Amino acid sequence: METLSLNKSYGGMQGVYRHESEATGTPMTFSVFVPEGEGPFPVLTYLSGLTCTHANVTEKGDYRAACAQHKIIFVAPDTSPRGDYVPDDEDYDFGKGAGFYVDATQAPFAQYYQMSSYIERELPEILAANFPVDMSRQGITGHSMGGHGALTIGLRHPRTFKSVSAFAPICHPSDVPWGQKAFKGYLGEDRAAWRQYDAVCLIEDGARTQQIMVDQGTEDQFLVEQLRPEALEAACKEAGIKLTLRMQPGYDHSYYFISSFMAEHIAWHAAALKR
Amino acid sequence: METLSLNKSYGGMQGVYRHESEATGTPMTFSVFVPEGEGPFPVLTYLSGLTCTHANVTEKGDYRAACAQHKIIFVAPDTSPRGDYVPDDEDYDFGKGAGFYVDATQAPFAQYYQMSSYIERELPEILAANFPVDMSRQGITGHSMGGHGALTIGLRHPRTFKSVSAFAPICHPSDVPWGQKAFKGYLGEDRAAWRQYDAVCLIEDGARTQQIMVDQGTEDQFLVEQLRPEALEAACKEAGIKLTLRMQPGYDHSYYFISSFMAEHIAWHAAALKR
Repeated sequence: METLSLNKSYGGMQGVYRHESEATGTPMTFSVFVPEGEGPFPVLTYLSGLTCTHANVTEKGDYRAACAQHKIIFVAPDTSPRGDYVPDDEDYDFGKGAGFYVDATQAPFAQYYQMSSYIERELPEILAANFPVDMSRQGITGHSMGGHGALTIGLRHPRTFKSVSAFAPICHPSDVPWGQKAFKGYLGEDRAAWRQYDAVCLIEDGARTQQIMVDQGTEDQFLVEQLRPEALEAACKEAGIKLTLRMQPGYDHSYYFISSFMAEHIAWHAAALKR
Repeated sequence: METLSLNKSYGGMQGVYRHESEATGTPMTFSVFVPEGEGPFPVLTYLSGLTCTHANVTEKGDYRAACAQHKIIFVAPDTSPRGDYVPDDEDYDFGKGAGFYVDATQAPFAQYYQMSSYIERELPEILAANFPVDMSRQGITGHSMGGHGALTIGLRHPRTFKSVSAFAPICHPSDVPWGQKAFKGYLGEDRAAWRQYDAVCLIEDGARTQQIMVDQGTEDQFLVEQLRPEALEAACKEAGIKLTLRMQPGYDHSYYFISSFMAEHIAWHAAALKR
């Protein structure tokens, strides 16, 4: 693991790191904020949305004050494999920057697009080996495509990720254009293979987690066509999962929205991850 | 004045605006955060450092939470005139992105580089005409070159700017490479013309302000060669100006440093600007 940068911030250290990933077969970059103090600390992994790298939330996420206060390690991975040799798409919503947190099975993407394995298996090993983390206390969150990632990974691994939240997540990707395009490209036409990567389908198929918090702006330009919080709400209700869905009036899909509620998400995860 | 973007954030509105400036003869872009509520609100103007535009602090400054809490309007102007026709320099520390908050007198810069007039005179008029500002309660702050701008503009206009703070300011530009290059280029060889744009010289020449707060990282890569807080400290001591100079151990020159102490600066200005 190579340290790309290290800056003191809010009493702790904000680092950016790169390593050769076995899962993706590419170098992967991620950022980690470690608060001041002894540790080990609980870990909150934040999955970013379409077009993003680790850098967007690291620069615009306003998470360091709350992580310093609550003594939480904040991890921000990339959204896809990167490299000239990694197959891509001309659109912003597929290929690089748009890994959708799945393990692709379709050529030519399957060789590198193994983001589910990367986030669930490899990144936690890297964290455990290199940072003062308490891996028994992990939470997961994310925005938009990354909110989809947080929900689905959290639902598939409820014992690993004890708290799950999201900002404006793609709740039911099998049923919306962004998700259908990605799943066809990465997973093929058989919709049965999509269900493990769709929060609503996972819940319908029996996946459970203790509780979920979601913030969603009412003026989000993608709300109706792509995000579908009402489908998540219905599935959670049917399954008896406690969902706190907060419709935030006037907020859009941007980091101006995310940052406004970041401190509340961190406090919520901190409470859920208390020993 | 044209609105380039408007996003709800922390209950208030973060806007980015452009207008045709009389002072610079160019379009000028700036950002304004207006907290929720009735107003009029006190105004804190933040002047950015070398290479920056309004965008750096708007994205990385972590100021909105504190401005929402203390009900402060936060204004971030650009650091120089912009445009293909605006004379520039190949280096990052002179020309575009490096206006040094002076009114240039030397060709070819004098035609556009009128940043002192822009910040002191024109921008406040734009704010007064378009936002719910209480212009009797203005504070000024900034980073590096912008810290220099805040100190010098604050010292020249103590009745306008009732509170003055800075992050890692260039305290004595006449005596350091960045400042000498800029002042020679914008103001000519006569060092007497530089003194009104040098915080230490201004104080030596009789300028006063009620109190100044400065944060400075001890691991700042520019501390020794360019920033010289000890010169400001000596001048303030000699003049009887109350200076709170906080040397912050381990912090560098980046926004990771600035953001760590932004909320404290905003609270300090809010207290100083209380009715």
